[in-house]
Amino acid sequence: MSITRVKIVGVGLLGTSLGLALAKKDLIADLSDSSNSNLDLAIAYGAGKQLNQEPELVVVCVPPAHTAKVVVEQLNLHPDALVTDVASVKSQILEKVMDQAPESASRYLGSHPMAGREGTGPVGARADLFFARPWVLTPHDKTSKEQIDLVRHLAMQLDALPVVMSPQEHDSAVALVSHLPQLVSSALAARLTEGSSEMLSLAGQGLRDTTRIAASDPDMWLQILQQNQTEVRPLIRKLIADLQDLETSFQDLDSESSVEQLVSLITRGNQGVARIPGKHGGKYFEYDIVTALIDDSPGALAALLVFVGEIGVNLEDISLEHSPGAPIGIVEMQVLPEVTAKLSEALIENGWRLA
Amino acid sequence: MSITRVKIVGVGLLGTSLGLALAKKDLIADLSDSSNSNLDLAIAYGAGKQLNQEPELVVVCVPPAHTAKVVVEQLNLHPDALVTDVASVKSQILEKVMDQAPESASRYLGSHPMAGREGTGPVGARADLFFARPWVLTPHDKTSKEQIDLVRHLAMQLDALPVVMSPQEHDSAVALVSHLPQLVSSALAARLTEGSSEMLSLAGQGLRDTTRIAASDPDMWLQILQQNQTEVRPLIRKLIADLQDLETSFQDLDSESSVEQLVSLITRGNQGVARIPGKHGGKYFEYDIVTALIDDSPGALAALLVFVGEIGVNLEDISLEHSPGAPIGIVEMQVLPEVTAKLSEALIENGWRLA
Repeated sequence: MSITRVKIVGVGLLGTSLGLALAKKDLIADLSDSSNSNLDLAIAYGAGKQLNQEPELVVVCVPPAHTAKVVVEQLNLHPDALVTDVASVKSQILEKVMDQAPESASRYLGSHPMAGREGTGPVGARADLFFARPWVLTPHDKTSKEQIDLVRHLAMQLDALPVVMSPQEHDSAVALVSHLPQLVSSALAARLTEGSSEMLSLAGQGLRDTTRIAASDPDMWLQILQQNQTEVRPLIRKLIADLQDLETSFQDLDSESSVEQLVSLITRGNQGVARIPGKHGGKYFEYDIVTALIDDSPGALAALLVFVGEIGVNLEDISLEHSPGAPIGIVEMQVLPEVTAKLSEALIENGWRLA
Repeated sequence: MSITRVKIVGVGLLGTSLGLALAKKDLIADLSDSSNSNLDLAIAYGAGKQLNQEPELVVVCVPPAHTAKVVVEQLNLHPDALVTDVASVKSQILEKVMDQAPESASRYLGSHPMAGREGTGPVGARADLFFARPWVLTPHDKTSKEQIDLVRHLAMQLDALPVVMSPQEHDSAVALVSHLPQLVSSALAARLTEGSSEMLSLAGQGLRDTTRIAASDPDMWLQILQQNQTEVRPLIRKLIADLQDLETSFQDLDSESSVEQLVSLITRGNQGVARIPGKHGGKYFEYDIVTALIDDSPGALAALLVFVGEIGVNLEDISLEHSPGAPIGIVEMQVLPEVTAKLSEALIENGWRLA
């Protein structure tokens, strides 16, 4: 199977990224946008062109509140094309399309690439945005296997990981793994507006991590949450209930029941975070970490990794830290547990410094 | 001013890190711990020795629940020494010391290096743990300028950033920037225990970031929170109030007042997160990112880094991602903006694939 004629409607961050990713696979997409300046920019970036062709696949990449309307327009405009979209809530869009274009709805197959980054518009676009990210396909009862295969093929061409679930399952999953975290992060960050700058000067990595997504665009989130309120609301309620129990325990954190309450919440948190799959999908894999010290100079890390490569050890992940001005860098190498001893011993024998 | 005789009591992660950091400045600390195996390990790591000397400065690095007791012991044991500690809550420890050793309390000056990392015990220790981190000094009305200078000097020797505030100001600050985020992250992660693994397979970076600290140790947090309940409780209440308003708005997110409510919370979150100072305090340094694709095989990353080293480019940070089963790895290299063009051009000219 190959796709040759793709039309992208809406060249914001996602649409432009999609065009760039396709261009890298030598597929020039037909671009369209209600804003001429966005369109010019996306074309200049190399995300595609304006082409005079009938698409076989239309990907609607407009803001969530407009997605259903634009999907219907595209279904009418291109009576032979399959139309998909990239909006982050699926059930409501499908309902609207079913309602407004019942005859054509069989040609609509919703999808959601779980990809995004800070920034908006074509300027924030990146060709590798979809790399190794889940791309959810949400077929309905009129969707054919061929249609699923077409969008799956698109996702795989861009090195994304296609996942198939119903629109309802999708919306319920993103309520938990995306929408609730967004609201919690926003509520936490909102508290910071009442802190003095002296207080905030003590901020560490924990605060930065928990509030990073609180920098997101309010209008975009309004549109997303308006379409998923029924899934998100009960989750907020349960979270509030836990926090209320917690607040009560803070009356007297020395009493046995309060201690139990607090420890139970933090322990459940431990269990919850352990359920998030690692980079390698499915199950969370605990890699061993081997930490080596190197000079902070060009080539020092390379020399270490040449050595690691020579002894045949594959690194699962690596992180480098060095303090500005300090003459030393710290390299944390994540490896499969079965090669930890081999790696550590070989490094020590050959004069590397381990931490 | 110089400090020559430092005693570290408790060689867990913080105490051992402190000893390692001092050793790098050629100061061998006198180590002490109730556990002989920890003590042996810390000495073997090079964090210090067992010395027969009277310290001028004692740094108590035991768990928060034991800090006050050990501070008092050390005040009695070393009648000429200044005693400080590293516990993350300050008022209650000061009160206890005042209460239990009123004669010696003038020789106690609390402090709190805002440093930590995953893991516990000497094994997790790192000499650069304090680098560029705030180190809060919390003098009381019996503290002299000379005493402040001594601990400030210690912090500066370890490249930490000394900050002086009252114990009360400190506790109120950490309640906001550390304790509340911990509880919120735990409560959010606790929700994940009710999600199916299919739902969790859609987890993205936002969820990972917001829940990372939820992996923290329940017992340690119980000890911390027990000492700061009066500061933390009102913050939980305010957070709950915001979430309750939010929950109400989810009754009908299309009504004007609900829209206003939701947008207001996310906007306040935007404002709050914008108030967090960057890594290096004050301003946040933006490195450029150059992304390359490599084969997922031993030696592939090394070959890339050898090349980067050969052209004389120093990497500020590096991260490696590769997807399950995919034959490709993605390497994000952070570099100073002035070398970005040089690096990218050299890579492309020599046949490397950039994303």
